[in-house]
Amino acid sequence: MLEELKRIVYEENLELPKRGLIKYTWGNVSQADHEQKLFVIKPSGVDYDVMTPEDMVVCDFDGNIVEGTNRPSSDMLTHAALYRHYPDIGGVVHTHSPWAVVWSQAGKDVLCFGTTHADTFYGTVPCARYLTSEEVEAGYEANTGEVIVETLTERKIQPLAVPGILLKGHGPFTWGKDAKDAVMHAVVLEEVCKMNFYSMQLNPETPELPDYILEKHYQRKHGKDAYYGQN
Amino acid sequence: MLEELKRIVYEENLELPKRGLIKYTWGNVSQADHEQKLFVIKPSGVDYDVMTPEDMVVCDFDGNIVEGTNRPSSDMLTHAALYRHYPDIGGVVHTHSPWAVVWSQAGKDVLCFGTTHADTFYGTVPCARYLTSEEVEAGYEANTGEVIVETLTERKIQPLAVPGILLKGHGPFTWGKDAKDAVMHAVVLEEVCKMNFYSMQLNPETPELPDYILEKHYQRKHGKDAYYGQN
Amino acid sequence: MLEELKRIVYEENLELPKRGLIKYTWGNVSQADHEQKLFVIKPSGVDYDVMTPEDMVVCDFDGNIVEGTNRPSSDMLTHAALYRHYPDIGGVVHTHSPWAVVWSQAGKDVLCFGTTHADTFYGTVPCARYLTSEEVEAGYEANTGEVIVETLTERKIQPLAVPGILLKGHGPFTWGKDAKDAVMHAVVLEEVCKMNFYSMQLNPETPELPDYILEKHYQRKHGKDAYYGQN
Amino acid sequence: MLEELKRIVYEENLELPKRGLIKYTWGNVSQADHEQKLFVIKPSGVDYDVMTPEDMVVCDFDGNIVEGTNRPSSDMLTHAALYRHYPDIGGVVHTHSPWAVVWSQAGKDVLCFGTTHADTFYGTVPCARYLTSEEVEAGYEANTGEVIVETLTERKIQPLAVPGILLKGHGPFTWGKDAKDAVMHAVVLEEVCKMNFYSMQLNPETPELPDYILEKHYQRKHGKDAYYGQN
Repeated sequence: MLEELKRIVYEENLELPKRGLIKYTWGNVSQADHEQKLFVIKPSGVDYDVMTPEDMVVCDFDGNIVEGTNRPSSDMLTHAALYRHYPDIGGVVHTHSPWAVVWSQAGKDVLCFGTTHADTFYGTVPCARYLTSEEVEAGYEANTGEVIVETLTERKIQPLAVPGILLKGHGPFTWGKDAKDAVMHAVVLEEVCKMNFYSMQLNPETPELPDYILEKHYQRKHGKDAYYGQN
Repeated sequence: MLEELKRIVYEENLELPKRGLIKYTWGNVSQADHEQKLFVIKPSGVDYDVMTPEDMVVCDFDGNIVEGTNRPSSDMLTHAALYRHYPDIGGVVHTHSPWAVVWSQAGKDVLCFGTTHADTFYGTVPCARYLTSEEVEAGYEANTGEVIVETLTERKIQPLAVPGILLKGHGPFTWGKDAKDAVMHAVVLEEVCKMNFYSMQLNPETPELPDYILEKHYQRKHGKDAYYGQN
Repeated sequence: MLEELKRIVYEENLELPKRGLIKYTWGNVSQADHEQKLFVIKPSGVDYDVMTPEDMVVCDFDGNIVEGTNRPSSDMLTHAALYRHYPDIGGVVHTHSPWAVVWSQAGKDVLCFGTTHADTFYGTVPCARYLTSEEVEAGYEANTGEVIVETLTERKIQPLAVPGILLKGHGPFTWGKDAKDAVMHAVVLEEVCKMNFYSMQLNPETPELPDYILEKHYQRKHGKDAYYGQN
Repeated sequence: MLEELKRIVYEENLELPKRGLIKYTWGNVSQADHEQKLFVIKPSGVDYDVMTPEDMVVCDFDGNIVEGTNRPSSDMLTHAALYRHYPDIGGVVHTHSPWAVVWSQAGKDVLCFGTTHADTFYGTVPCARYLTSEEVEAGYEANTGEVIVETLTERKIQPLAVPGILLKGHGPFTWGKDAKDAVMHAVVLEEVCKMNFYSMQLNPETPELPDYILEKHYQRKHGKDAYYGQN
């Protein structure tokens, strides 16, 4: 069942340590099949050295395990919530990558200071609020997903235009049209968090990139007349 | 004698440079057998390239060398003190990993700012005081152990709940149910020290994680109804 | 056509990830043949794992594609402008290397604080202004080149004496007598941006290097009586 | 002539990039034979990929080339001055390692904040003054050596007790009983500069290590009753 998806999800999970985003098993990648309303996710706490594609777990968008002998990632219900709410999202990534965690702990939005940001994120990457005590008790992981949805809705963000978020006191979630895309967005977010931190230390008055340059960079890569890449 | 333990201790010592925690021979890992009241520790100042499992040294909890032709790690008596005081501690690690040293030199406790911390440390990681001149003279390494015990006692910390400490002007000690666990705690402490430093620079008012989220994260991994991992 | 140049440009592009200057495909290297008024540049957005020397694109100094089935780097017109204006420039590099981006986002010139800088850059590395909205609309990449020329002209900088610049809100361009030289200048600029940042944090009054030491270091390597290296 | 010394110097030069102390050819290592009053040093600006032990250059303590077809490191006369003044110094290293350069550019002494420092440097590592314009003109590299000697003399530093120095606006020189020792001191100085920077950012009131702990750590490794290591 979904063998090709398992292979993809397995390989994209291996990208996390390779790209320096995680230590040990501090991250998880999933990819969805929206026709079947199913997604494949990494098992919880399994060493990457011994993990195989067959260890991946198949879940439905309500968070039920459909196939697999392993327990899924403890954050599985957050992934499910994102797929349930957003038919455009095909892949989801969660990490504890250090720079994104730094901004999450500080509780700060990531403003667009430069074209590295604008090439991928069409504006500010928001930092979502803490869950309330009631939300944690009622279902921590599912409500983490709901808080992401609430934040994007309040900020009027179209998920694929700003494909990532910070969770206060926790870390980043990113997404994309598939798992590979979501992993790339996790890499970009980490790099942008690092560069913005230092820019602000160097110049506390670091300005936001003018809108017309943000527009230009985002559109030359993602707009209908995009001319970046070979497609 | 204790051949399996020697192999484990040897391998976990090799993890220190592999995980970027030490340069040269600036660290040591041990693991205890509490039934026999013995522990195995790295020899002092031996290059990791030429070190073998047979070079490990067997000591008792009073710090006597029981087997081995090499001199044990110069910090051996600190390890002995921890095993003697705490029957729960099965492995001990000391490093000069840079971020933990930064906090040790600054003489500051590491507060819990996020879930990366809460997944492993059930609250603040304390920074212990300098030894007094008398304590240094009477026995530097043994008294380093006593200062750790004093600090945990004063702070009412159960050692496996907060499996690490900073020594002012020196660096970190971590521990766990075995050497592998203690090494992982050294990695987490290093990462948390790095992330907390930057969070505080970015936002001097970085808040401590609310208790109910700390509770949730620690318990989902270590509580009686833990659902992280496969066991 | 220009097979040797394609091989060189291919290899120097591979240096960018190897030297830690870029992630994914966030950079581009070109080298010119000034006799033929042609240059060879990397194709846009092609994975380095699958890229071959044959994928390189040949362009003329007006930015026309002369040979190649791939679309050239999206920054191709900036490279063309530099070759058109400066017959001395044989190679051009653009990256999003983090420290140079930090300074670009902060919008600050890089002063000469030490001999690492003076060995390569004969004085301050300028940060150019944002393009105006009109300039972006009229031709973003070509006008990026014009803003570089404007900045060097205003600052009275001879391009090979200060072989690099920062673009506000974007990142660095460097150049040299050939692509290899331009890549080395990108490495030096990144390192200098890192070291200067920390020097200023450590000592906000960090002084510029005295002129006579800047002179000595630059000339012992690049002057007519240079005695660095074997030539 | 001095074939064994050439092999050692060659290998210790290769340690510089391996240990992350230099990029390209930005460093040099030498080792002396005090009986013959000769030393072997790296050639200037030769790529490490193609360099062989035979490329090393033999010089005397007055800075004359005694053997070798290559031009020696441009800093050769600084090495010569150190060997001429200090019969205890058997190896010398110069790098542009980033953290030591940061402190050099900031023009600040490196105080002893912790035991990592105390294990190798018996007190403050000084930052020497800029050379004067006259000194640069009269002989930059030889006078760099004289300024090092002047600084150690004024500070009453015995060279092997504090085996390193920072040169204002330039970078570190370290030394030791041989080249291997000098390289290790370059690694320690770099690490200490990094950790001290961050400690001061975290706590501007970071205290110097109490003398009795400095004493204890230095002597347990280097004193007559040293018990660190196996000798």
